[in-house]
Amino acid sequence: MFNNRVKIKALLAGDTIGQEVTVMGWVRTFRNNQFIALNDGSTNNNLQIVVELGQLDDATLKRITTGASLRVTGEVVASVGKGQTVEVKAKQLDILGDSDAEKYPLQPKRHSPEFLREIAHLRFRTNTFGAIFRVRHSLAFAVHKFFNEQGFVYLHTPIITSSDAEGAGEMFRVTTLPATNPPLNDDGSVNFKEDFFGKSTNLTVSGQLEGELGAMAFSEIYTFGPTFRAENSNTTRHLAEFWMIEPEMAFYDLEDNMDLAEKFIKYIIQYAMDHNREDLEFLAQRLVEEEKQLPQDKRSELGLIEKLEFVLNNGFERITYTEAIDILLNSPAYKKKKFQYEVKWGIDMQSEHERYLVEKHFKKPVIVTNYPKDIKSFYMRQNDDGKTVAAMDILAPGIGEIVGGSQREERLELLEQRMREMHVPVEEMSWYLDTRRFGTVPHAGFGLGFERIVLFVTGMTNIRDVIAFARTPKNCEF
Amino acid sequence: MFNNRVKIKALLAGDTIGQEVTVMGWVRTFRNNQFIALNDGSTNNNLQIVVELGQLDDATLKRITTGASLRVTGEVVASVGKGQTVEVKAKQLDILGDSDAEKYPLQPKRHSPEFLREIAHLRFRTNTFGAIFRVRHSLAFAVHKFFNEQGFVYLHTPIITSSDAEGAGEMFRVTTLPATNPPLNDDGSVNFKEDFFGKSTNLTVSGQLEGELGAMAFSEIYTFGPTFRAENSNTTRHLAEFWMIEPEMAFYDLEDNMDLAEKFIKYIIQYAMDHNREDLEFLAQRLVEEEKQLPQDKRSELGLIEKLEFVLNNGFERITYTEAIDILLNSPAYKKKKFQYEVKWGIDMQSEHERYLVEKHFKKPVIVTNYPKDIKSFYMRQNDDGKTVAAMDILAPGIGEIVGGSQREERLELLEQRMREMHVPVEEMSWYLDTRRFGTVPHAGFGLGFERIVLFVTGMTNIRDVIAFARTPKNCEF
Repeated sequence: MFNNRVKIKALLAGDTIGQEVTVMGWVRTFRNNQFIALNDGSTNNNLQIVVELGQLDDATLKRITTGASLRVTGEVVASVGKGQTVEVKAKQLDILGDSDAEKYPLQPKRHSPEFLREIAHLRFRTNTFGAIFRVRHSLAFAVHKFFNEQGFVYLHTPIITSSDAEGAGEMFRVTTLPATNPPLNDDGSVNFKEDFFGKSTNLTVSGQLEGELGAMAFSEIYTFGPTFRAENSNTTRHLAEFWMIEPEMAFYDLEDNMDLAEKFIKYIIQYAMDHNREDLEFLAQRLVEEEKQLPQDKRSELGLIEKLEFVLNNGFERITYTEAIDILLNSPAYKKKKFQYEVKWGIDMQSEHERYLVEKHFKKPVIVTNYPKDIKSFYMRQNDDGKTVAAMDILAPGIGEIVGGSQREERLELLEQRMREMHVPVEEMSWYLDTRRFGTVPHAGFGLGFERIVLFVTGMTNIRDVIAFARTPKNCEF
Repeated sequence: MFNNRVKIKALLAGDTIGQEVTVMGWVRTFRNNQFIALNDGSTNNNLQIVVELGQLDDATLKRITTGASLRVTGEVVASVGKGQTVEVKAKQLDILGDSDAEKYPLQPKRHSPEFLREIAHLRFRTNTFGAIFRVRHSLAFAVHKFFNEQGFVYLHTPIITSSDAEGAGEMFRVTTLPATNPPLNDDGSVNFKEDFFGKSTNLTVSGQLEGELGAMAFSEIYTFGPTFRAENSNTTRHLAEFWMIEPEMAFYDLEDNMDLAEKFIKYIIQYAMDHNREDLEFLAQRLVEEEKQLPQDKRSELGLIEKLEFVLNNGFERITYTEAIDILLNSPAYKKKKFQYEVKWGIDMQSEHERYLVEKHFKKPVIVTNYPKDIKSFYMRQNDDGKTVAAMDILAPGIGEIVGGSQREERLELLEQRMREMHVPVEEMSWYLDTRRFGTVPHAGFGLGFERIVLFVTGMTNIRDVIAFARTPKNCEF
């Protein structure tokens, strides 16, 4: 057994003065040949290790460099220094692994996010990324905890799919055929019968359709898994591979759907506030520092913690798409021709429109409902007006769309008709339509892009900084 | 708002007699034009709805068929019938969706698992698959709960990877290049610079290497995500797409690793026993029924519940690979030439060998350690004997290998040497080697195939029956 250590988070939180403990971790700084700041990733807070002058030989002292790994046994004592209440007086110190100070890319100073993206395999060791990924962990756990408490069944919908009906975006092809000279049919097309699955297959863009199958048996299910878009979008908000949460609920209408989504988002934010306060305070301070470079009017009006508290304590605004367009048309921004894109009923709102609504007009999350049917998917429930569908998008300040959902069309005839209009292959989707043939019920669901909510909660601005190893066009490192 | 229902599980569990409630669900059976068995997926237990004779017209009565969906409001009353303590006396009954009895594939009788695999989109509505997927949910939740309680960080390692060094098996290629006439280099090879990521990419076979990067910052991380094998294995234990859990821990040696794995497996089984007792009892009974067709000596010695209790209450046997080979060589089975495959030191044990060890010799889960280095991966820590590595596999009765893990080689020189011997590209893997260059520490980890543990806990025998939509060679439906 090697693992007899106490985690630094537990040590700092507990009443441990006078105990002899063993700790292990990595050196963040070493001052005056006496004071080691040791971090083990359990918290951003370092443990101060105190080495007595003369206790270690010079050769050992030289090896205590930033990034080196140590095992230290010693007594926990009250600290007289600033910044910590306890420290460990080293009795035994072993260097587990060296770190050549000349070569180690991380130094105890601020590194740019761009530089750290290049060394994503090491950036977890910084305060910022330590905090981000502990918050991400807590948000992910809170997702599972929320749905488990509500009695939802976690369904693992398939990643590889032969269906391309979801229509959510461009897809990656999955194949075991040779890249050159694949087997061909007589007409010169590729003979996918020879491919692994005997047909052409892709990476999923959504688990919704399969999720609906589960909801028609368990009433309430959710998915939480990776999804893919083969779109050449090099933005701060898009990834080719990202994680999505998709609950799907029988016996829900659009209002039930909105209520659940709002409750869910508040629950996971509250969980992070309760369990990652120190990380969030660190990230709040980071945001303040970062925004110092910006002119006053570009800075966030609220600090990170205040923003999250505001979301927790206020209802999301709920407006129809038609109302949203009216607000835009009557806005000073529109009258001063500040919008780049056209505003009129029927448009797919652009980021500038969504941001105006949430950041300027309402200054809070907004749920927009009942979008024009022509800009939405075939499976959304048609409203009686013949023009709109029972869709809902949740827009968040600084992020834009964070949730997209709808009540689903449960009426077989209307669904089939809409599929034909939108050229969705009705026969291939017979399994999906069976849910409407046999015991159909009103039902609804939504998708939440997990990285978008991590962005929102951490105050980061580039989505590549909140996923461990980002996959974007021309970029698939590690 | 539509969703004003009480879930049947809550109704049956609570003290609800005398209350007026609304329930919604699907009809399982309808007897004597009076007694509806209604199921909403929250539990395998149906709620009995009682309709008074003459209360509904004939046209409505005819529509109450297996699979139809209903909304019922009425009073909860004590039941005089067998099999339930309470029932609902219908005051208002609405048919939400019809189910044509002539066409609905599920009838209130036993269907074969093979038939149900063909209609995997409907099989969730059966008692067996309802129970399986509720147990699967609980096991998944328990995975997250266990690691969260232990302070592990949940890391989403990438699904699309440009690395093929994991060496765990054949890979699927991920591409956006056209299937015919892809862009070529001058030498006739495919020009992957034109592919989405600017290089050739695959679906991951393991998140371990990226997991190690996380462990070198957070000390303890875990992954839980889909993994892929493009292997043409049409067996009852293999899937092309499956979910895997991979914890990775700094400051752990092999013994710490075994301790964690055993504690983890017991924790998630205990969780299912505590939260899914009814589902497990149903599955136990199913197993008894299924095994009635088998000769006595092929039936399970223990019932499902007893088997799980046995695992919970007994330590896993721990033996070295060398001891395992000795046991096999000295076994009656070997002496009677009952093994199909050769037994000698150095072999990669076959299923028949593993099953002999766990099912005949020890009759409990077995952890086999210190395998010959030549049959294991490059990253496993080399033992001082020069022949073996600090690997560990956990073998379970009826399943075989359920966990594969090891202490990792933390010594840079030995690791590089082994990579060269095994033709792993050292330069491409420089990011991985950085963990050994900068603050390397003893560390370990393991992988657990999630569907394997679901098989073990549910007593099912075909892995296609414990994943929602199985992906296997020539099969990618739904």
